[in-house]
Amino acid sequence: MSPVTYADIEAASQRLAGVANRTPVITSRTVNELTKAQVFFKCENFQRTGSFKFRGAYNALAQLSDRQKQQGVLTYSSGNHAQAIALSGKLLGIATTIVMPQDAPAVKLAATRGYGAQVILYDRATTTREKLAQQLASDRQLTIIPPYDHPQIIAGQGTAAKELLEEVPQLDLLLVCCGGGGLLSGCAIATKSQPNQTNSPSHHPRVIGVEPEQADDAKRSFYTKKLQTIHNPDTIADGARTPSLGKYTFPLVLHYVDDMLTVSEAAILRTMFFLWERLKIVVEPTGALAASALLEGLITIPDTKIGIIISGGNVDLQQISQLLK
Amino acid sequence: MSPVTYADIEAASQRLAGVANRTPVITSRTVNELTKAQVFFKCENFQRTGSFKFRGAYNALAQLSDRQKQQGVLTYSSGNHAQAIALSGKLLGIATTIVMPQDAPAVKLAATRGYGAQVILYDRATTTREKLAQQLASDRQLTIIPPYDHPQIIAGQGTAAKELLEEVPQLDLLLVCCGGGGLLSGCAIATKSQPNQTNSPSHHPRVIGVEPEQADDAKRSFYTKKLQTIHNPDTIADGARTPSLGKYTFPLVLHYVDDMLTVSEAAILRTMFFLWERLKIVVEPTGALAASALLEGLITIPDTKIGIIISGGNVDLQQISQLLK
Repeated sequence: MSPVTYADIEAASQRLAGVANRTPVITSRTVNELTKAQVFFKCENFQRTGSFKFRGAYNALAQLSDRQKQQGVLTYSSGNHAQAIALSGKLLGIATTIVMPQDAPAVKLAATRGYGAQVILYDRATTTREKLAQQLASDRQLTIIPPYDHPQIIAGQGTAAKELLEEVPQLDLLLVCCGGGGLLSGCAIATKSQPNQTNSPSHHPRVIGVEPEQADDAKRSFYTKKLQTIHNPDTIADGARTPSLGKYTFPLVLHYVDDMLTVSEAAILRTMFFLWERLKIVVEPTGALAASALLEGLITIPDTKIGIIISGGNVDLQQISQLLK
Repeated sequence: MSPVTYADIEAASQRLAGVANRTPVITSRTVNELTKAQVFFKCENFQRTGSFKFRGAYNALAQLSDRQKQQGVLTYSSGNHAQAIALSGKLLGIATTIVMPQDAPAVKLAATRGYGAQVILYDRATTTREKLAQQLASDRQLTIIPPYDHPQIIAGQGTAAKELLEEVPQLDLLLVCCGGGGLLSGCAIATKSQPNQTNSPSHHPRVIGVEPEQADDAKRSFYTKKLQTIHNPDTIADGARTPSLGKYTFPLVLHYVDDMLTVSEAAILRTMFFLWERLKIVVEPTGALAASALLEGLITIPDTKIGIIISGGNVDLQQISQLLK
């Protein structure tokens, strides 16, 4: 029995209704002409806190027991999950503690604190964040909400694909970026289980995960069927710097995902700035991964309908503008 | 009798239906909290060719006689109007000739030619573009479609406000950027004439135009009631570098617009990058003018509904990223 079912994703949708944004699906004549396909971008950069992470975080926090809610939650993240937990806690009246590295960007620290979270800084050189988090959670009786390897997180992220499929029912292919695999596995479950299609799996859209070449652990795990790990991969796509898939996400990716692709750092940047200039949307590097596989020609399937999840749009403009060649 | 009526704007809407994008109206919790108002952004950066200019250009070209259509049209512009005319011509099967300066950005030349327009380059130092355009139009029997001072252009631009008011019927205030006044006067006519309100003008939303401080000719014209001119104003908002309002737009602005404001260059840039970072939309400097008046605190009217036209999103990322301090 799968730890995450379509019913879990439907229940997550109910919890998120009126709280999360039902993000827009946008199309581009330019992209359709370039790819000779019909392409639908599900824009999670317009989600609250600027990424899909809010879906999973809120879904998980909403299901805590009253006692857990009173005691509060803890997570470790320097990125989008931190802000998602902080805002979800604020909305649900749950105290949140976030363990972040001392050298996290000031703008992310400020955003996380702005939602009312207590931020605990640590020194990367001397401290392991998981260990510190465990210690703090145990001392303070906080519930740890990990960034991706958690059934309720996965179910929450799956609502992004569920919404896209409701809006565009006849997709042939869905492309999703992959870091720890929470978004990818959730979206794959939603896609392969959607009830408005026949029950034959061949009638469901194909689902392909996309990673940076420099952080191809999930692709190698997928092909070898053994969990592969990369520590501190050197990629601009910070959401894909996770060391490996998780104990929940790895089997789900193996079961529900059809293939994995990788794209180069240059391809990620070209795609990201293309989306800025031509679609007029601000997308972060990780958010451009799935689009990159299509726009860089790794996949060419004319006359089809292709869905792409744009996972987020949180960038430091000062920093990112350095990357314009 | 006004040279542009609400009926003209309605007719333009009919012509544009299914051709122009009905652009999204977006909201932001952050902006609402900052301004203590409900703010609605009409996003013409998502319009075809990346700006509102397509509305007016297509509306004008669609109304040419068969003979004029066969002979073709000409315009002079190095900016968004050029691309709008080029695409409109392509869609309607009308040959287009665009007079552009030799030193126009390569990306704009390429985009304009990409739509099939014939581009004629001139040397700014030795040639006046209006004179060259007149000569060419006369020699080749082309119809000149000016960038703003033309009733059909004005009516087309007014459809942007018409759509916004249909979506958000109870606006208290509409903010619109002002260059030559085509968008501002068209939107003001639409706002002050909308039939779903009472006939009393006091029940219509206020309309305020926003210009760069460095290019405040329209504000000075508005207050002095005499047409003021500024040649080559030094502003980053290239859509507002027009020397003055026109013979149609000046009286319309005087009649339909309630007030004019100006914003500094620094305010324009801060607002533009705020919209990129927080709303995740790419907006050009001119496109940030109207929002700037609100976000920089020139207007504070809590508990109201405020509409803002984001006029366009065409930027050269290389160039604009130099402006990040």
